[in-house]
Amino acid sequence: MIIQLKANADEQIVTGLIARLKATPATVIRIKNHLAIPEVKTVELSAAEASAVAEVIEKTPAAVLGSRLFQPEDTIIKLPHSIVGGKGNFTMMAGPCSVESEAHVRKMAKVAKAGGATILRGGAYKPRTSPYSFQGLGEAGLKYLREAADEFGMDVITEVMDEDHVDLIARYTDVFQIGARNMQNFSLLKAVGKTNVPVALKRGMAGSIDDLLNASEYIAAGGNHQIMLLERGIRTFDNKYTRNTFDLAAVPVLQKLSHYPVIVDPSHAVGEWDLVTPMAHAGVASGASGMIVEIHDDPEHAFSDGPQALKPDTYMKMTEQVFAIRKLMDSWE
Amino acid sequence: MIIQLKANADEQIVTGLIARLKATPATVIRIKNHLAIPEVKTVELSAAEASAVAEVIEKTPAAVLGSRLFQPEDTIIKLPHSIVGGKGNFTMMAGPCSVESEAHVRKMAKVAKAGGATILRGGAYKPRTSPYSFQGLGEAGLKYLREAADEFGMDVITEVMDEDHVDLIARYTDVFQIGARNMQNFSLLKAVGKTNVPVALKRGMAGSIDDLLNASEYIAAGGNHQIMLLERGIRTFDNKYTRNTFDLAAVPVLQKLSHYPVIVDPSHAVGEWDLVTPMAHAGVASGASGMIVEIHDDPEHAFSDGPQALKPDTYMKMTEQVFAIRKLMDSWE
Amino acid sequence: MIIQLKANADEQIVTGLIARLKATPATVIRIKNHLAIPEVKTVELSAAEASAVAEVIEKTPAAVLGSRLFQPEDTIIKLPHSIVGGKGNFTMMAGPCSVESEAHVRKMAKVAKAGGATILRGGAYKPRTSPYSFQGLGEAGLKYLREAADEFGMDVITEVMDEDHVDLIARYTDVFQIGARNMQNFSLLKAVGKTNVPVALKRGMAGSIDDLLNASEYIAAGGNHQIMLLERGIRTFDNKYTRNTFDLAAVPVLQKLSHYPVIVDPSHAVGEWDLVTPMAHAGVASGASGMIVEIHDDPEHAFSDGPQALKPDTYMKMTEQVFAIRKLMDSWE
Amino acid sequence: MIIQLKANADEQIVTGLIARLKATPATVIRIKNHLAIPEVKTVELSAAEASAVAEVIEKTPAAVLGSRLFQPEDTIIKLPHSIVGGKGNFTMMAGPCSVESEAHVRKMAKVAKAGGATILRGGAYKPRTSPYSFQGLGEAGLKYLREAADEFGMDVITEVMDEDHVDLIARYTDVFQIGARNMQNFSLLKAVGKTNVPVALKRGMAGSIDDLLNASEYIAAGGNHQIMLLERGIRTFDNKYTRNTFDLAAVPVLQKLSHYPVIVDPSHAVGEWDLVTPMAHAGVASGASGMIVEIHDDPEHAFSDGPQALKPDTYMKMTEQVFAIRKLMDSWE
Repeated sequence: MIIQLKANADEQIVTGLIARLKATPATVIRIKNHLAIPEVKTVELSAAEASAVAEVIEKTPAAVLGSRLFQPEDTIIKLPHSIVGGKGNFTMMAGPCSVESEAHVRKMAKVAKAGGATILRGGAYKPRTSPYSFQGLGEAGLKYLREAADEFGMDVITEVMDEDHVDLIARYTDVFQIGARNMQNFSLLKAVGKTNVPVALKRGMAGSIDDLLNASEYIAAGGNHQIMLLERGIRTFDNKYTRNTFDLAAVPVLQKLSHYPVIVDPSHAVGEWDLVTPMAHAGVASGASGMIVEIHDDPEHAFSDGPQALKPDTYMKMTEQVFAIRKLMDSWE
Repeated sequence: MIIQLKANADEQIVTGLIARLKATPATVIRIKNHLAIPEVKTVELSAAEASAVAEVIEKTPAAVLGSRLFQPEDTIIKLPHSIVGGKGNFTMMAGPCSVESEAHVRKMAKVAKAGGATILRGGAYKPRTSPYSFQGLGEAGLKYLREAADEFGMDVITEVMDEDHVDLIARYTDVFQIGARNMQNFSLLKAVGKTNVPVALKRGMAGSIDDLLNASEYIAAGGNHQIMLLERGIRTFDNKYTRNTFDLAAVPVLQKLSHYPVIVDPSHAVGEWDLVTPMAHAGVASGASGMIVEIHDDPEHAFSDGPQALKPDTYMKMTEQVFAIRKLMDSWE
Repeated sequence: MIIQLKANADEQIVTGLIARLKATPATVIRIKNHLAIPEVKTVELSAAEASAVAEVIEKTPAAVLGSRLFQPEDTIIKLPHSIVGGKGNFTMMAGPCSVESEAHVRKMAKVAKAGGATILRGGAYKPRTSPYSFQGLGEAGLKYLREAADEFGMDVITEVMDEDHVDLIARYTDVFQIGARNMQNFSLLKAVGKTNVPVALKRGMAGSIDDLLNASEYIAAGGNHQIMLLERGIRTFDNKYTRNTFDLAAVPVLQKLSHYPVIVDPSHAVGEWDLVTPMAHAGVASGASGMIVEIHDDPEHAFSDGPQALKPDTYMKMTEQVFAIRKLMDSWE
Repeated sequence: MIIQLKANADEQIVTGLIARLKATPATVIRIKNHLAIPEVKTVELSAAEASAVAEVIEKTPAAVLGSRLFQPEDTIIKLPHSIVGGKGNFTMMAGPCSVESEAHVRKMAKVAKAGGATILRGGAYKPRTSPYSFQGLGEAGLKYLREAADEFGMDVITEVMDEDHVDLIARYTDVFQIGARNMQNFSLLKAVGKTNVPVALKRGMAGSIDDLLNASEYIAAGGNHQIMLLERGIRTFDNKYTRNTFDLAAVPVLQKLSHYPVIVDPSHAVGEWDLVTPMAHAGVASGASGMIVEIHDDPEHAFSDGPQALKPDTYMKMTEQVFAIRKLMDSWE
């Protein structure tokens, strides 16, 4: 339920109403002149309370704090080297799937930067389907990643899989990535919600739009409002030629419902390098605020996800084209 | 199984081999210097036969006649007012979902043409989920559609749902559309395969890439090689905010496997007009050879699919942007 | 919209109301004391009309003629050797995927009958994904199938794929089967709807419950109310170890919404013979009115779908167990 | 890769081979006379090594420790009041979705026991889609649940969402439940894998059979082999009348691939109480080793998942029927 207050509502009455609702008990979230009471559908108002209320809407949106209803303007996330979200900003994030060595991540950072990326990606703790697959270099990987980013004037994004690692990883990264498998790991979402480090939340393989928004609300409810939403493909029957199905319509849908920046990940969406460039073109054209891609100089020997990695030359050509499409689109607005 | 013949293969030996294989019995399709034998996996060759054979490949692709293996160059379909497929050609198709009246389709044809469309769409026989929904104007609708197209110098695309209508509709249309629900209506596919009218084959809601290619082969096997493949969204769990999931990665996948032009249908993919423009942008950026969209001047009173129709102004702006993206992409090649 | 008439409604007023609604224009279906007007959501009633009306319900169910709302009692389909639907009836249908020869279908009929089947299945016209796969024996196959059924005192079910074959096949079969790929081949549905031959309608691979019910309504609206609904597995991401996902919850859902008998097809649902028996157990336990399974004495050399065929011994054991579960369940009611 | 050793293999050579493979580096798991090396596909063997090897199989199964290949006999999990897995054992687990109060869980335990359940379920930490939904009573809930189970001579199963809660919850429960949303929360899987408390692992909404088996391997690799696999419905396009699609074919598929007991959860699979009984019938008939269901005496006021809870009378009737089907099936074997 949403209670829209009148512009001139008596503050004492409003405070009383909130207290009364909280005692029922219910969660009451005040955003400017709205009260959102997510689990409640009706309320009886006293005459005094009614005098303060403009409208009562039965349905609460999936993400209250993330909703455009209460914050029409875009969330813009400012990092040392990047601005994510808002008109006219397009952020490229690139790097290897896994941090493989100090030298390798440095080499990839140089390529990433040359192609226009301002955020360096790389996994130090890897969520692998099998326990026998490479699980990442751990803290050493974080150090190599940070040093490589610093050398080339980039920000860092890396995955956190475990609430006990939140503090450790926060010392090295500018953005936490929550992977698709952890989209509804609510303990982890609460943990990053208590930090002030921006969070890039990936949509789960079976995550509906509302599930993703609700998951973002776990982070926001903890006080951390610097959230990006990542579309990376969903699981459907169509999985012979592509790893997942890239749901690009999620970009405008999420932008309509929420003020958070929406980022696309063509690499995981398709899983095959030669499909990444056309899907990167489609991704920027869908209106996303940014893109995250995997690169590798020797994909056949990559520690993880080699088949979807772009070689440096292909990456350079791709980003040039992506920025050209973005520039064209900016000229329309 | 595919038998690749040597460039200098003795034609008499080849003819003998084909006859021998056909007698097993098996289907043998000769395309230049390849023999495709779809249902067979191994063959014993005599010494003489072996001398004519360069290589034997166990696996036959889903669509033999549609495969890039045997025809690397793009299929290009030439209509009086349009060229579909091939480098540098991008075809816009637009019109109302249903032909509603002579005057209305004429009005919509004028808008479609003004926005750069060269093919006019409109349904005279409608496949509706419920038998109680509007089923189309029938032959009168075909006439109105043809006249409107002729007046504005456009080609016609319209759906055929019924093999008994093939001859009738062929008198009015330049392109048959096979709808998603009929992708595996093999009797219908065979019927249009016997005509020389180009066919636009829509991917079914549960159609895999291979299913679509196999369905196209039913048409091609009848002798009609003028085929376009249409991506219009697949059915997935994600269906609250969009009618279907637009699988744009199918565009480069189909282009890699097949030489037929690939067309995208953002209207049916998303089902909501305000998502059509971003998905049209994404669709052209994915590299498709063309696009088909629904337009209506009064969507609330449309006979069918009103919510997904673009109003004329929105359509005009959308096509201008789509052609601009296409022009930019042409400059890269 | 549904208009529920009062028990004592003035018949003249009702006739007038129907005429007035039809002229709007709208489809009006009268079932006892209900008027269903599928495409309309509201109506203004005159005072006289209002006096005849007990209630107006905004929403029309997917299948009006198939709905429990208007016909609470089960549809029971009586064939010469079988009763399908209704309490206490459980119908086994079995036979080869394709009719392969006169001798073979006779042999399979004997097995089917021995296992308790009263309906013999077998395809003479086969819907194959590839045009190069075996397409069936055609009319010769129909003859062999009919003769085999007659010899063993069984009814026949066989697939019709083509409206031009409806009359031909009607001469040989007791039940038309509409395959999953043709669930929304509306021309075909209309054609069988005009006959008085019972129809077994298979759910499409992407067919929702409402789609299936709407498809059944195409048949019923033509006057043929002898309809069975077949659950045969839907297409989902989970397709490595089973061909489809057997959606057994569809059985009680369909039984709640509709009065038509619901039949399960474990063979196509899983596609692997060793999973058929447990899924046959689950199928009967779900409360279905019958079951259709594929059998073959030499699955490795079957003309189609060999991997899912039960050998005679396995089939005999399976049906004995299925009937035992059914008998146990009958003892509860 | 799997290396099958000869029965009389020289142990010194085997030890040397293992050491050599581990140094490459690779994971080597020895199970009786097999070596599984999951990430490796080929190996060159010295003449001496080859003399110890019977066969080399390229493909490693998804779950090495869970595979029937190396342990043909069923895993049987013995709890104080229950035996889970193995021929002739069928375990009923029942209780409220959430522990709501000391008195309520006691009341529900009495009902659960009366219906034949030997394991009491109840959530004290709840994974809720929205952060504003009831999140569970926490440790107080665990105490109430334990006391209720003890009073009625039952075992306890309850969900653990958070690796930091593993030790706490272990003090109260007999079985950890890992929820569908955490199926690939690898940190949590590793944490419960280090305990000696049995684990019931729920299949994720987009979890393939192989994903589920790989997830179980994270637990087993830590040393905890007391694992049950839970089928609770997957997410598909068919979600209007049921919350999920109950994939019962997963039961025989998992039983074929793995030796762990397979349990079905009809309550979450369908989400509507009136569909639970037929799906419970189907579930036991599919051959599952047990079942977990939700019960509530006042579903409309349940703290969570009320619509899917069985009232006591319905539950009692359902379990009686389920045990009767199981008894019938036992008579066949």
